Amino acid sequence: MKIEMAELSSHEVHELLTRSVAPLPIALISTVGEDGVYNAAPFSLVVPIGYKPPMICVSFGLRRGQKKDTVRNLEYTRDFVVNIMDDSLIQTTIQTSVDYPSNVDEIKEVGLTAVASDKVKSPRIAEAQVSLECRLMQRVELGDELRNVVFGEVVLAHVKDELWVDGNVDPYNLRVVGRLGGGTYCRTRDIFKMKPS
Amino acid sequence: MKIEMAELSSHEVHELLTRSVAPLPIALISTVGEDGVYNAAPFSLVVPIGYKPPMICVSFGLRRGQKKDTVRNLEYTRDFVVNIMDDSLIQTTIQTSVDYPSNVDEIKEVGLTAVASDKVKSPRIAEAQVSLECRLMQRVELGDELRNVVFGEVVLAHVKDELWVDGNVDPYNLRVVGRLGGGTYCRTRDIFKMKPS
Repeated sequence: MKIEMAELSSHEVHELLTRSVAPLPIALISTVGEDGVYNAAPFSLVVPIGYKPPMICVSFGLRRGQKKDTVRNLEYTRDFVVNIMDDSLIQTTIQTSVDYPSNVDEIKEVGLTAVASDKVKSPRIAEAQVSLECRLMQRVELGDELRNVVFGEVVLAHVKDELWVDGNVDPYNLRVVGRLGGGTYCRTRDIFKMKPS
Repeated sequence: MKIEMAELSSHEVHELLTRSVAPLPIALISTVGEDGVYNAAPFSLVVPIGYKPPMICVSFGLRRGQKKDTVRNLEYTRDFVVNIMDDSLIQTTIQTSVDYPSNVDEIKEVGLTAVASDKVKSPRIAEAQVSLECRLMQRVELGDELRNVVFGEVVLAHVKDELWVDGNVDPYNLRVVGRLGGGTYCRTRDIFKMKPS
């Protein structure tokens, strides 16, 4: 089957790419607005892109033609927090994607707990397995639909004590969920080790 | 546990970010060099970042202080192919990361089959579940270690017929492996559907 990408709608391209380049991680990104209202929403177009300095890239779509609250907030504070949630909290995480009014604290609304970060204005989520405090380095508008691609420097990491084994995060204890596209997700507990022979 | 990122080595940052922002996809990227030799290597710092035009971003580290063969090749041809492999071929996929000399065809060496692409000079892998033919849009050198971040436009997709269900890739048939960091990987067959309530 050959698919000419130029003949697909944006939605079809979105489906094809996120169903193929899989699994994708799920980052619950927390921010605070100019009005002091906390915000959180899940994003999967996220990837570490550099280590010195530590850098993360996130691509944000528009919502009804406008910048999402997360993007407006991180432009205002120049920071954001990437929270990695346990699989027991993944339904709660996805619940924050509901289109609440901008003046609703989505973190409290879904039953999670916002706590002050150490180095950035955006709050972090107390229940997260890992929270990465990030400072905005650059925001680029990209493509015909003016997606917002954000580059952030990770300045501080919070890791649950029970996940910290032998000087780093233990993948066997981090119970993340992967996104497979088309509304499907996968657990990641069927773990194996592998290296070239 | 709080970790000051500035106090970590690049290797420790790499481990912390790839073990936390997980699972990451595994892209087997195939290219061809100026000398006509085929190349393939697995990369996980890869993410779709836009849909109109269809775009993918990949971040490449250096190898012994030099650009990797993949990066040198894609600069020469201005294209590359992202191949998504079945979990039965994941050991073979990882095997291509071995440090073969530049004049060795790694695709043949590990027992995979390179076939001509339709729109780009880089070959695609015949055994792939999905192959995305990409044209290089931009390459950016980033950070103190001059990582190469590459932006590509996806122009043509090849999808195995049995994966094409109801007009798109079927996540239930795509048997990918996720990368969890620290040399660990996960199967992705424990699938569930989820949406906000």
